[in-house]
Amino acid sequence: MKNYLSINDIDSLPNWVDEAIALKKDPYQFKEMGKHKTICLLFFNNSLRTRLSTQKAAMHMGMEVMVMNFGSEGWALEYEDGTVMDQGNSEHIKEAAKVVSQYCDIIAIRAFAKLKDRTKDEAEEVLNGFTKYASIPVVNMESSIAHPLQALADAITITESNTKPKPKVVLSWAPHPKALPHAVANSFIEMIKKQNVEFTITHPKGYELNPSITKGCAIEYDQNKALENADFVYVKNWSSYSDYGKVLSQDSHWMMTQAKLGSAKFMHCLPVRRNVVVEDAVLDGGQSLVLEQANNRTFAAQIVLKKILEHSNVFSAKGKE
Amino acid sequence: MKNYLSINDIDSLPNWVDEAIALKKDPYQFKEMGKHKTICLLFFNNSLRTRLSTQKAAMHMGMEVMVMNFGSEGWALEYEDGTVMDQGNSEHIKEAAKVVSQYCDIIAIRAFAKLKDRTKDEAEEVLNGFTKYASIPVVNMESSIAHPLQALADAITITESNTKPKPKVVLSWAPHPKALPHAVANSFIEMIKKQNVEFTITHPKGYELNPSITKGCAIEYDQNKALENADFVYVKNWSSYSDYGKVLSQDSHWMMTQAKLGSAKFMHCLPVRRNVVVEDAVLDGGQSLVLEQANNRTFAAQIVLKKILEHSNVFSAKGKE
Amino acid sequence: MKNYLSINDIDSLPNWVDEAIALKKDPYQFKEMGKHKTICLLFFNNSLRTRLSTQKAAMHMGMEVMVMNFGSEGWALEYEDGTVMDQGNSEHIKEAAKVVSQYCDIIAIRAFAKLKDRTKDEAEEVLNGFTKYASIPVVNMESSIAHPLQALADAITITESNTKPKPKVVLSWAPHPKALPHAVANSFIEMIKKQNVEFTITHPKGYELNPSITKGCAIEYDQNKALENADFVYVKNWSSYSDYGKVLSQDSHWMMTQAKLGSAKFMHCLPVRRNVVVEDAVLDGGQSLVLEQANNRTFAAQIVLKKILEHSNVFSAKGKE
Repeated sequence: MKNYLSINDIDSLPNWVDEAIALKKDPYQFKEMGKHKTICLLFFNNSLRTRLSTQKAAMHMGMEVMVMNFGSEGWALEYEDGTVMDQGNSEHIKEAAKVVSQYCDIIAIRAFAKLKDRTKDEAEEVLNGFTKYASIPVVNMESSIAHPLQALADAITITESNTKPKPKVVLSWAPHPKALPHAVANSFIEMIKKQNVEFTITHPKGYELNPSITKGCAIEYDQNKALENADFVYVKNWSSYSDYGKVLSQDSHWMMTQAKLGSAKFMHCLPVRRNVVVEDAVLDGGQSLVLEQANNRTFAAQIVLKKILEHSNVFSAKGKE
Repeated sequence: MKNYLSINDIDSLPNWVDEAIALKKDPYQFKEMGKHKTICLLFFNNSLRTRLSTQKAAMHMGMEVMVMNFGSEGWALEYEDGTVMDQGNSEHIKEAAKVVSQYCDIIAIRAFAKLKDRTKDEAEEVLNGFTKYASIPVVNMESSIAHPLQALADAITITESNTKPKPKVVLSWAPHPKALPHAVANSFIEMIKKQNVEFTITHPKGYELNPSITKGCAIEYDQNKALENADFVYVKNWSSYSDYGKVLSQDSHWMMTQAKLGSAKFMHCLPVRRNVVVEDAVLDGGQSLVLEQANNRTFAAQIVLKKILEHSNVFSAKGKE
Repeated sequence: MKNYLSINDIDSLPNWVDEAIALKKDPYQFKEMGKHKTICLLFFNNSLRTRLSTQKAAMHMGMEVMVMNFGSEGWALEYEDGTVMDQGNSEHIKEAAKVVSQYCDIIAIRAFAKLKDRTKDEAEEVLNGFTKYASIPVVNMESSIAHPLQALADAITITESNTKPKPKVVLSWAPHPKALPHAVANSFIEMIKKQNVEFTITHPKGYELNPSITKGCAIEYDQNKALENADFVYVKNWSSYSDYGKVLSQDSHWMMTQAKLGSAKFMHCLPVRRNVVVEDAVLDGGQSLVLEQANNRTFAAQIVLKKILEHSNVFSAKGKE
């Protein structure tokens, strides 16, 4: 694997999950692999878990880390080809990506959807721009349409908690005061489709996600019905996809409660707005897996770095022949 | 010691000061103690000395360091219990503290008083919130009401410079164009009360500090009288405590001058406004200890980290039995 | 060499260039030299290449790195002597420089020209303030009037690409929508004057650089004439020096094109505005050296750090006698 841009870059999800779980027992066991290697974390948006867990994962691998808030510390980037750059943008992605590639061995990028123009968001200009022009591997730390480090951490978490041969997993929309991107939901769905589970998505009408991603998934508009006999309930807000980026409903009846949850495990990627997305009783109770998910972010990132380092080491070895 | 939140968390101030002075001679001697341990420095406010000296101290101990400007790089935090989080705050301290605890071994936090609401400042929602919910040790890098790393550095500095069995120490208020917090003065007083010194506080009427902290201390409103025969003069501005957060006076007669200082040593935590708080002649003269204080910030932080690492190592060892 | 403030701090440019080229083959060969040494990078302005390449160079030398955005993370600094600091600035350069000197072994500083007041810019208050009061070596990461790390990287790049005994080098002004500083052009000229080259500067009338820097250089106002038989063309915008900081022309005829470039190599320090400063065909073609220049920033910084560490080690050894 060269880049980790989407959950589909994983060759075998069960193998990766198993390896990640093994890493947790002795996180520094592959420390020599990252010796004299540097990862550069480029943030175009805010971050807590991703920032710290990816740094931690790199340290576990023995790598050096350079962190940069691209927006405030660097130069405004141009992504279009052929532009006459006489406006606000100072540097073209072609130069930026190629230059950063010379200073490090892996680039990790966070650049959220702006939710104004679907075509533009789906073009993933930041992530794809870096991927196109960088000469080194690129890791997606949440792009406009995907958050595969989160989804991999979620897969690890489900594997660790699951007790059934074929559990029922529900992805449930929740209300939120702001318009949020679809990245987490998209990657969760792509990940869950690779699992041996019964899967249902539930949300109010108008909140249908990108049909090319939900293809083949059961969609149930009655939340209570969807939640029946659930083993894992993943709760997440997203804005409308068809009426792109709009908040169509803030209906608090969709908030997850302990009563609705029943005996299922509760999952959320965090940050989460208490008593809007989910009531306190759920987060403070024994069925919440949110801390396990956050902790697994480190090991999801670490297994990704390990796979990239292994791949690039093989490449270097080949190059030397 | 689990946390370092206040000067009162020190079991024996003389011992700590002696150990810190010993560290200065060979700062890397305990480098193995921090191997594979990470400290996360969370800044909710600006910092120069604290940012750099705490990083340096952690490097001396062989630790990895992650620095985060929480305000601009992370998510706005909610501290109240039971809130319906439908306003500006994206994440609850419960999740933030527990999550950060999973990525590091020690959290250090800077969160100043806002000086708008005394009750709220004294509740120390940021520091106490992290301390309550974090599962790892917390270090105070200046909170609303305390700056114990500064006070410990001050104790080291006084010990190094003192030549008398019972020196006279004066804490003198100084004018300043802005309203400043009480944290430095509070922790200095708490520290000095543990020393064998003659101690006087001097300030204009209306600038009395929290009486529960100054209890037992001599307060003298005549600055000249207070300064008589002083060996160490600690100068600092603070805003009113009774008329909370207000600037009642900017009387330049309270500025420290060489004439007033006499033969005493001059101390200040920095940053200091020249010719407002203290005249150039004092800072540029031979009696100023401000650089020694700043340098001792590294070793104050290092002895704190060492004590925490020793404590947690004992704990881990016990846990393994 | 104690400080690296200007290209004139280099004792032998050919030797440094040769040493830098040797470092590229085995960047970690002097890793022991920086053990337990710390560099602090202080940014008063944005940076991409300088930020990452200087960090990388320090890592190659085995140093610890602390990065600080002084403007947003630290305190506003006062530079004047004797000021009554009752306005916006919280800390004097005297204290800041001396304090930072206690936490690290080398300070590197970026502080651009403000282009409002020539005398003030030429006074270099930030760089010179730190140099005057710091007790440790200072590295210039681009100041008001000089960018000697860039010029050193350019010297390495020219040496690597040059095939002639005495190549012709042209520095050509280019249009730009914003007023830019003179630092890059100044240091390039100072560097090129130390080389065995034929050198011509070309720009529209009114864009003459500081005559004390261009003294002895051929200036040709006809760009086409200047470019005849050029081997290396360094393109850069700068604002007027005589009508200080003003944009007198944005004449797009001065943009570099493949046709004008002929068979010469193209150089630019980046970031570059495509199709304003230079057309796409040049940057995307085979004659551009911009990526080599950016890559050589790492080794320019590394040879500077090596020279400083060697010098300070000799000093320490002497001090111990």
